[in-house]
Amino acid sequence: MTILSERRARLAAALPAHGVETLLVTSRVNVRYLTGLDSSNAAVLVAADGSARLATDNRYVERAQALDVPVVEAVDTAGALAVPGTGIEAASMSVATYRRLLDRLGGDALVPLEHVVEGLRAVKDEDELELLRTACAITDQAFADVCGAIRPGMTEREVARVLEARMAELGAARPSFETIVAAGENGSVPHHVPTGRPLMAGDLVTLDFGAVYEGYHADMTRTVSLGEPAAWQRELYDLVAAAQRAGREALAPGADVREVDAAARSVIERAGHGGHFRHGLGHGVGLEIHEEPFLGPSRTGRLEDRVPITVEPGVYLPGQGGVRIEDTLVTREGEPELLTKTTKELLVL
Amino acid sequence: MTILSERRARLAAALPAHGVETLLVTSRVNVRYLTGLDSSNAAVLVAADGSARLATDNRYVERAQALDVPVVEAVDTAGALAVPGTGIEAASMSVATYRRLLDRLGGDALVPLEHVVEGLRAVKDEDELELLRTACAITDQAFADVCGAIRPGMTEREVARVLEARMAELGAARPSFETIVAAGENGSVPHHVPTGRPLMAGDLVTLDFGAVYEGYHADMTRTVSLGEPAAWQRELYDLVAAAQRAGREALAPGADVREVDAAARSVIERAGHGGHFRHGLGHGVGLEIHEEPFLGPSRTGRLEDRVPITVEPGVYLPGQGGVRIEDTLVTREGEPELLTKTTKELLVL
Repeated sequence: MTILSERRARLAAALPAHGVETLLVTSRVNVRYLTGLDSSNAAVLVAADGSARLATDNRYVERAQALDVPVVEAVDTAGALAVPGTGIEAASMSVATYRRLLDRLGGDALVPLEHVVEGLRAVKDEDELELLRTACAITDQAFADVCGAIRPGMTEREVARVLEARMAELGAARPSFETIVAAGENGSVPHHVPTGRPLMAGDLVTLDFGAVYEGYHADMTRTVSLGEPAAWQRELYDLVAAAQRAGREALAPGADVREVDAAARSVIERAGHGGHFRHGLGHGVGLEIHEEPFLGPSRTGRLEDRVPITVEPGVYLPGQGGVRIEDTLVTREGEPELLTKTTKELLVL
Repeated sequence: MTILSERRARLAAALPAHGVETLLVTSRVNVRYLTGLDSSNAAVLVAADGSARLATDNRYVERAQALDVPVVEAVDTAGALAVPGTGIEAASMSVATYRRLLDRLGGDALVPLEHVVEGLRAVKDEDELELLRTACAITDQAFADVCGAIRPGMTEREVARVLEARMAELGAARPSFETIVAAGENGSVPHHVPTGRPLMAGDLVTLDFGAVYEGYHADMTRTVSLGEPAAWQRELYDLVAAAQRAGREALAPGADVREVDAAARSVIERAGHGGHFRHGLGHGVGLEIHEEPFLGPSRTGRLEDRVPITVEPGVYLPGQGGVRIEDTLVTREGEPELLTKTTKELLVL
């Protein structure tokens, strides 16, 4: 049994609990997860008996035929596979596709489901973890190289470009998301888009980025100091580092996702900065940069074993700047496995 | 009136014909087109009187507040704006969001619509054309530079990486799509993913790529020859070049999209290669790499003035190789404006 047919078997086994005998999988990453085909137009129908059929159009059909699933060539891939009573992926299927399928199959013929394949994807197999390790190693190495290249006068955009070029040279397919480089006061915007602002001595600079390797997404953030940090900068850094450590230490199979968030958040709240940390503590990574599970004050659920996840607290002071420290880790019995190995000491460049 | 409020006014004027008084816009690029905000979580409600409200979450709210539309901070952005009877974007809204909104607003409270904003976006304003010109100029320059760097022994993946790095240096935000570099027999797969195959003397090599600049997507394909081409390679190239010329010459405001496709396709069919050209002739480009209008045998509609569109015939011989030549052009009264200016003579490297 290949790893792909194992994944389909796990899905097949889960279908009865969702009240369906088949699931029409249309999310691009879920199709890739179950069949190995990465296509902008593909669908797979998985049945409770473990059988599957894959549909894609003529651009991808050669690649599909090399896989271990029967292939149907079609432009309307969902339409080619849909059967009455099938579950559908409500989080990604569009209303337009849904209505066209309903028109064809009749009234109540589809069962909208959510989080079926996504739930299975949260726990990674060893093949996936190995790809994530490589993605994170590329990320670490690119960061090390960029630290050697950063000089005052370079703009945020130039630093982002160097970082992305270095990841590509090291084998990344692409960046995991739009690289964030935020210098000085721009550090107060968690999702800052790099600008032409030059880096200056005295800046804290936050770099949030990652490499995609064979579809798997690394995610890391470090805040560095250009020149000796001021007292407030050092203090802010130490606070976020302490919060991040508390978050990492709370990661464990069985842990409540809200409590992991609280472990880090309470450190920041006790320092009076609760209002300056307004996003969740972390998120799963894998074939998507943000996937289940999520760590946050209003999230529910418990972590399982072998779940890659980020821990990324930050403190953002409007008009002044910010610090964020983020690792990608994997939950394990005992200690979590750290995938991004760059030091968390404050780097002074 | 700014260009953004003009766009919203055009949309507002179009709403009555769709039977609604408001449209809840949730597609990322459509929100960007109407407000200037590029956000992974935003929605805008545009009313027939031209007024609009924008919702986004705390990560983007600072940027949103700098725009000329009233802002609501919310995590559930569609939910924060939806009103009974509103049109929704059926092509991009998920079934899950749709069902949650229906639950809240009651039975028939939403009107699924398609192609409303997309239809408006097909015709570009001068601001957009200027950004596309820049995107295409970056694409041309990167191609010229890469032609100087290509040597036998480089792998498809290395060529793709050099091309993408060069586009980034020239100011591209990212590649328009996953760069295609297909050497020799791999040229028979229109959407080939670059591999470790080294380029060899005697190969035709197809490069299909483009730069994104300020959100606007360039798209260009050239097939080059490594060393003097064989007779069949030269013949295939000349055929595709003739088809591409015919397609370009058929581009005009008022032209039927099926007839533009046929103008190029008939050249290939007359040469006996109709079965080796199995994709549409071209597609609109703008904030998306594939957007309305589409040129193909089963497409309908007529071109308008100021529509950027690709013309990209190809002939693909299984197991042997292929040729594709693609430009991005803009429909104009008289001749179309050519945005990708790289020569279409067969380059022998």
